[in-house]
Amino acid sequence: MIIRKKENWLRMLFIWKGSVLPQILFRLLLLLFISIVIVYFRGSFFNYKIQLNPGPFTLFGIALAIFFGFRNNVSYERFWEGRKLWGSLLNTTRSLTRQAQTLVQTEDKEEINKFVDLLISFTYALKHQLRHTDATNDIAEISGENLANKLKPATYKPAMLIKEMGLWVKKHRLKGDFDSILTVSFDQNLSELSNIVGGCERIASTPIPYTYKVLLHRTVYIYCFLLPFGFVDSLGWMMPVIVSFIAYTFVALEAVADELEDPFGLEPNDLALNSLCRTIENTLLELSDRDLKTPTPEKDYILN
Amino acid sequence: MIIRKKENWLRMLFIWKGSVLPQILFRLLLLLFISIVIVYFRGSFFNYKIQLNPGPFTLFGIALAIFFGFRNNVSYERFWEGRKLWGSLLNTTRSLTRQAQTLVQTEDKEEINKFVDLLISFTYALKHQLRHTDATNDIAEISGENLANKLKPATYKPAMLIKEMGLWVKKHRLKGDFDSILTVSFDQNLSELSNIVGGCERIASTPIPYTYKVLLHRTVYIYCFLLPFGFVDSLGWMMPVIVSFIAYTFVALEAVADELEDPFGLEPNDLALNSLCRTIENTLLELSDRDLKTPTPEKDYILN
Amino acid sequence: MIIRKKENWLRMLFIWKGSVLPQILFRLLLLLFISIVIVYFRGSFFNYKIQLNPGPFTLFGIALAIFFGFRNNVSYERFWEGRKLWGSLLNTTRSLTRQAQTLVQTEDKEEINKFVDLLISFTYALKHQLRHTDATNDIAEISGENLANKLKPATYKPAMLIKEMGLWVKKHRLKGDFDSILTVSFDQNLSELSNIVGGCERIASTPIPYTYKVLLHRTVYIYCFLLPFGFVDSLGWMMPVIVSFIAYTFVALEAVADELEDPFGLEPNDLALNSLCRTIENTLLELSDRDLKTPTPEKDYILN
Amino acid sequence: MIIRKKENWLRMLFIWKGSVLPQILFRLLLLLFISIVIVYFRGSFFNYKIQLNPGPFTLFGIALAIFFGFRNNVSYERFWEGRKLWGSLLNTTRSLTRQAQTLVQTEDKEEINKFVDLLISFTYALKHQLRHTDATNDIAEISGENLANKLKPATYKPAMLIKEMGLWVKKHRLKGDFDSILTVSFDQNLSELSNIVGGCERIASTPIPYTYKVLLHRTVYIYCFLLPFGFVDSLGWMMPVIVSFIAYTFVALEAVADELEDPFGLEPNDLALNSLCRTIENTLLELSDRDLKTPTPEKDYILN
Amino acid sequence: MIIRKKENWLRMLFIWKGSVLPQILFRLLLLLFISIVIVYFRGSFFNYKIQLNPGPFTLFGIALAIFFGFRNNVSYERFWEGRKLWGSLLNTTRSLTRQAQTLVQTEDKEEINKFVDLLISFTYALKHQLRHTDATNDIAEISGENLANKLKPATYKPAMLIKEMGLWVKKHRLKGDFDSILTVSFDQNLSELSNIVGGCERIASTPIPYTYKVLLHRTVYIYCFLLPFGFVDSLGWMMPVIVSFIAYTFVALEAVADELEDPFGLEPNDLALNSLCRTIENTLLELSDRDLKTPTPEKDYILN
Repeated sequence: MIIRKKENWLRMLFIWKGSVLPQILFRLLLLLFISIVIVYFRGSFFNYKIQLNPGPFTLFGIALAIFFGFRNNVSYERFWEGRKLWGSLLNTTRSLTRQAQTLVQTEDKEEINKFVDLLISFTYALKHQLRHTDATNDIAEISGENLANKLKPATYKPAMLIKEMGLWVKKHRLKGDFDSILTVSFDQNLSELSNIVGGCERIASTPIPYTYKVLLHRTVYIYCFLLPFGFVDSLGWMMPVIVSFIAYTFVALEAVADELEDPFGLEPNDLALNSLCRTIENTLLELSDRDLKTPTPEKDYILN
Repeated sequence: MIIRKKENWLRMLFIWKGSVLPQILFRLLLLLFISIVIVYFRGSFFNYKIQLNPGPFTLFGIALAIFFGFRNNVSYERFWEGRKLWGSLLNTTRSLTRQAQTLVQTEDKEEINKFVDLLISFTYALKHQLRHTDATNDIAEISGENLANKLKPATYKPAMLIKEMGLWVKKHRLKGDFDSILTVSFDQNLSELSNIVGGCERIASTPIPYTYKVLLHRTVYIYCFLLPFGFVDSLGWMMPVIVSFIAYTFVALEAVADELEDPFGLEPNDLALNSLCRTIENTLLELSDRDLKTPTPEKDYILN
Repeated sequence: MIIRKKENWLRMLFIWKGSVLPQILFRLLLLLFISIVIVYFRGSFFNYKIQLNPGPFTLFGIALAIFFGFRNNVSYERFWEGRKLWGSLLNTTRSLTRQAQTLVQTEDKEEINKFVDLLISFTYALKHQLRHTDATNDIAEISGENLANKLKPATYKPAMLIKEMGLWVKKHRLKGDFDSILTVSFDQNLSELSNIVGGCERIASTPIPYTYKVLLHRTVYIYCFLLPFGFVDSLGWMMPVIVSFIAYTFVALEAVADELEDPFGLEPNDLALNSLCRTIENTLLELSDRDLKTPTPEKDYILN
Repeated sequence: MIIRKKENWLRMLFIWKGSVLPQILFRLLLLLFISIVIVYFRGSFFNYKIQLNPGPFTLFGIALAIFFGFRNNVSYERFWEGRKLWGSLLNTTRSLTRQAQTLVQTEDKEEINKFVDLLISFTYALKHQLRHTDATNDIAEISGENLANKLKPATYKPAMLIKEMGLWVKKHRLKGDFDSILTVSFDQNLSELSNIVGGCERIASTPIPYTYKVLLHRTVYIYCFLLPFGFVDSLGWMMPVIVSFIAYTFVALEAVADELEDPFGLEPNDLALNSLCRTIENTLLELSDRDLKTPTPEKDYILN
Repeated sequence: MIIRKKENWLRMLFIWKGSVLPQILFRLLLLLFISIVIVYFRGSFFNYKIQLNPGPFTLFGIALAIFFGFRNNVSYERFWEGRKLWGSLLNTTRSLTRQAQTLVQTEDKEEINKFVDLLISFTYALKHQLRHTDATNDIAEISGENLANKLKPATYKPAMLIKEMGLWVKKHRLKGDFDSILTVSFDQNLSELSNIVGGCERIASTPIPYTYKVLLHRTVYIYCFLLPFGFVDSLGWMMPVIVSFIAYTFVALEAVADELEDPFGLEPNDLALNSLCRTIENTLLELSDRDLKTPTPEKDYILN
């Protein structure tokens, strides 16, 4: 996630980091070069004039508007749904912590903290699964080597951790620390955790249908490549400037939509999962009267 | 579902598999041929000049934008709702497995696994119902011949399997393995399974109103057929190129929307139900400490 | 609901039944006739030339796009919400049937079937209320003459039937067939039925604000009537063809939106309530091991 | 709410009541007059020609489309959410009535009816709060003078009435008419009533951000006032007709959006709260075997 | 939140406070000045004519429509979701108050009021967290110095206050004031409070992806700066007027979207959190038969 303060309207026009300009610069310069060549030859190749005018671009425009309106909304919804799921994770882990502290009939603070640690391990395990990294070290640090080794071979670690919490609940129910009514309260929140894992897996494993992406990509790039021919006659030497700018907006828009589509990655506009994990860890530690850890620092305006 | 890695922006322009180009190639070549004939005769038939210019195409364009904006969104929402339902299926079966393992007062692991197997059978039965194939073999393999034979004549197999789970719960409640409070926890998740089945049936049995599809189809094709006449005068020999490209985007867009409308089929962009069934099976097997099966392989970039 | 198989792209252009063409043919022919007269007189009345060009139609176009985008989405959402409510009805009646079979401590299958029959009667009663027909015969056939006569004078029959189910639950609770915990499980699903009835009543009793409909209607028809004057000079004898086609898409679109607005009626694109009732009846009969009835047949591609 | 039957497509063009024409007639006539003056002087003031053409109106058009698309959707969503809340009110009061009748262990029908009367009073109290009128008379008539006097000074009457219901439930629980499990069933529906009140208060107290309304208003009116100058040269004496019609659609659209924004008022397109209150009252009376009251009559096609 | 009564259509055109005009006036005057200079030199710099016409602005227009349609909707949805969360807060605190009053078996009104005070403190603590101010004084005033001092060092004060409520519930459950069934009723509403806190934190901590904002900002301002060159030839001295007006709508629209994006701030169109806190406080005081405080007054049409 890019973290920048609100800028003055004038300064915002000249921002470099945080715009996608660095990523797409080469393509834009290429187009600028082509445009200049086209103006120089007045849109002719070996005396054959490419006959094109602004007319058809309005028709292409309809297609572009449909595609972008769609792609943009869908990408952003995926991003926002991902954020909502991690928000629910914060809420549900807090609620489970409160339940462990106020519903269980025990003075053994260690036992409660063990459950809270399972929740923190679960949070990190989910992050690692979504980013295809190994959760073992984090689990070992939080909940001990034993559990970490037990879960090492597991394919679906977060699901296995929910089962561990279920077994903790079972143990304490059988010990008589609470009755089956309060068990249900725990169980419902464990199901909620299960829904969160499943929701994240769904977003991560099901991209926007590939054919849409190919279609949008082609329409955008062929559109931008044809633009110089369409405007060379009416705009003259202003054409390369105008064309580069129009191309900038469209190409950049596609690039952002592409970043947001998989919100759990490490690109600049993706969700700051590291920071979210630390927030959840800290609020759970505060609720169980333990010391907080230092928040994840941003770097180059970017938090991940 | 089409599984392709992110490509370079340049390579993506030349992708063949995964675009719908193969499907609609004939129509586009036909249009290209017509366009060339029209340029050759300069838009006249037997000396009668078809008097058309780019003007009316903007008006058509309004209709097209409305239709596509609508058709596209609705098709994608159906696709995504189907995916969400299968995501819920994953979550709910995991939760039911956890409940069977942590709420039931029994040491008989076989009994628990029998319930988990009912969940797996249910998943496959739903897939078969949605794809109009026979679930009997899969049920027999997972839950035994007896159940498979009993369900063979049933029209609504998944609903019958939920009833079987209900009877399993009843049996164990009457045996005293849990009280009526925990029964309710099971019962709610069984209702959730019922909602998932009903949701899938709803999408599969209620297509987008037919009249919409006819209207969009006609507007798109008549639009594309009239395009050459509208642009022959202003674009000359560039016209066939431009017209083919515009037609490609619109015809392809309609074709994709058509695929996504029924997301449970076997077309390239449909949901990968086989793979989803295997994922659910494997996570439930892992939760009950059994061996996982090999995941469904992709073929030609396509997973179904 | 119109039931037609997917057609070849070429054949789909010439479909008659299932398009709204039959309904709006007269209006289109009228417009065609007017257009031909206008071409003949070159847009002049008694030597006074109606001075109009394609320019203002783009501005009208904005209004049309706003209206249609809105009307279309709202109508479809009403249609789809209606379908979802009937889908929930299927799910909830199945769940209640399962609950009656697995939560009640009785061997008296008759009693259970009586409850299931109440659910089926309820389904039919809802259909009759939404279509303003009399439910008495259907109720008599399914749940007996007594109940039918008792409910005959009732204004809100489905609500009264939910009360009947509530009384059935009360009777069996007082008999000791289940405790108050399981009573709550029934009660929640009865509330769900209540929500479904209320949702359907809401859609049926609250149309889209009338003023919107008048505004859209006027914009569409005045737009189409002015079109010939705007294009007579630039398109000549091609004008009547183009104008008729543009008018076809807009007028047809309004007609479909009008049909979908009240999804419980008997127009071709409305929901197939008869068929849905039969589906619900059959799945409940199958769950209670009784014989299924024959599904509602389609007629002329239409299922209602 | 405007109640008019479906009209013939031709008649619908000439409807007076139910369109917003009466409200905005003066402004349209003013514009018509200005337009005629402008045609007469050919767009010149004291020999200074206002140099304007249709070009910039397309750019304005973009702004208008954005504003209207937004304003329209938001207004309608507020209207529809208001309707949904009142639909939930119907469902929840019916469910609470059923619960009072089937969950409470008492033969005292009077006590049950007292509870149902509280529900009816609550419905009327909510209506009065939303319309800023005094609920005291209605409460007195339904639940007696005592309660009416007690609630007279209360600012949040509906919230106080939910508390009264809570006290009724408390009384009967302490009397042993039901256990704490069934208490929870009542309590959940009382919370639901609380959500409905809060939802209505939210819509009523938070209008669309004022700045949006000012912006849209200005864009629409300045647009319409500039239109005559833009089209006087190309349309001549047809200009006043065309401009008036375009202005009609935009000004009317804004007026309707303005009405729907606060759906609880007394304008023609607002929700028919009086009629909804009577419907709820009647269905609750029918459920408790009491006589129904006469439904609210419509007047001049309008139900409020 | 801006509080202004409905104005006459004419007066609304001349409103100053409540439009964003004051904020953006300097930029508009700058553009007006540039436009006048450009008309004076007829679009030439040192005899080099900037060759631009209205054509490319339609293409830019597509980009603008996509960006604004998106930015606008997302900003408003964030605003409205924030409002819904505070609406839920009202509903849930009312429900918890009712539960404390009707489910707890105690005559000790002080104890009940202590719980209600925790709810009020929680509301203020949430406001302070969202506005990055210190909640200690408000908590001290409502729930006493002890609690205020205890919570002073806490980073997540609202979450800690929910824990306090949980401990209150635990105390009374252990005292036997209610059983574990009614405990669950409290617990569910405490989880609901947790969801509300988490939802508000989510909106406050996750802005719209920064790249989108940069892209929209650039497109709007470069568009407006190029407009004068595009229209100088066709509009002459009318150009500065038209350009300023078009720029006003776009720049203002961006400014409003920017305000609504973070709805918990202190800008004119933000949510009136102070007033909402007072409303919640007053309704809870009324429910517990205590005296109401004076509502927050508006100032300069603004409530915050």
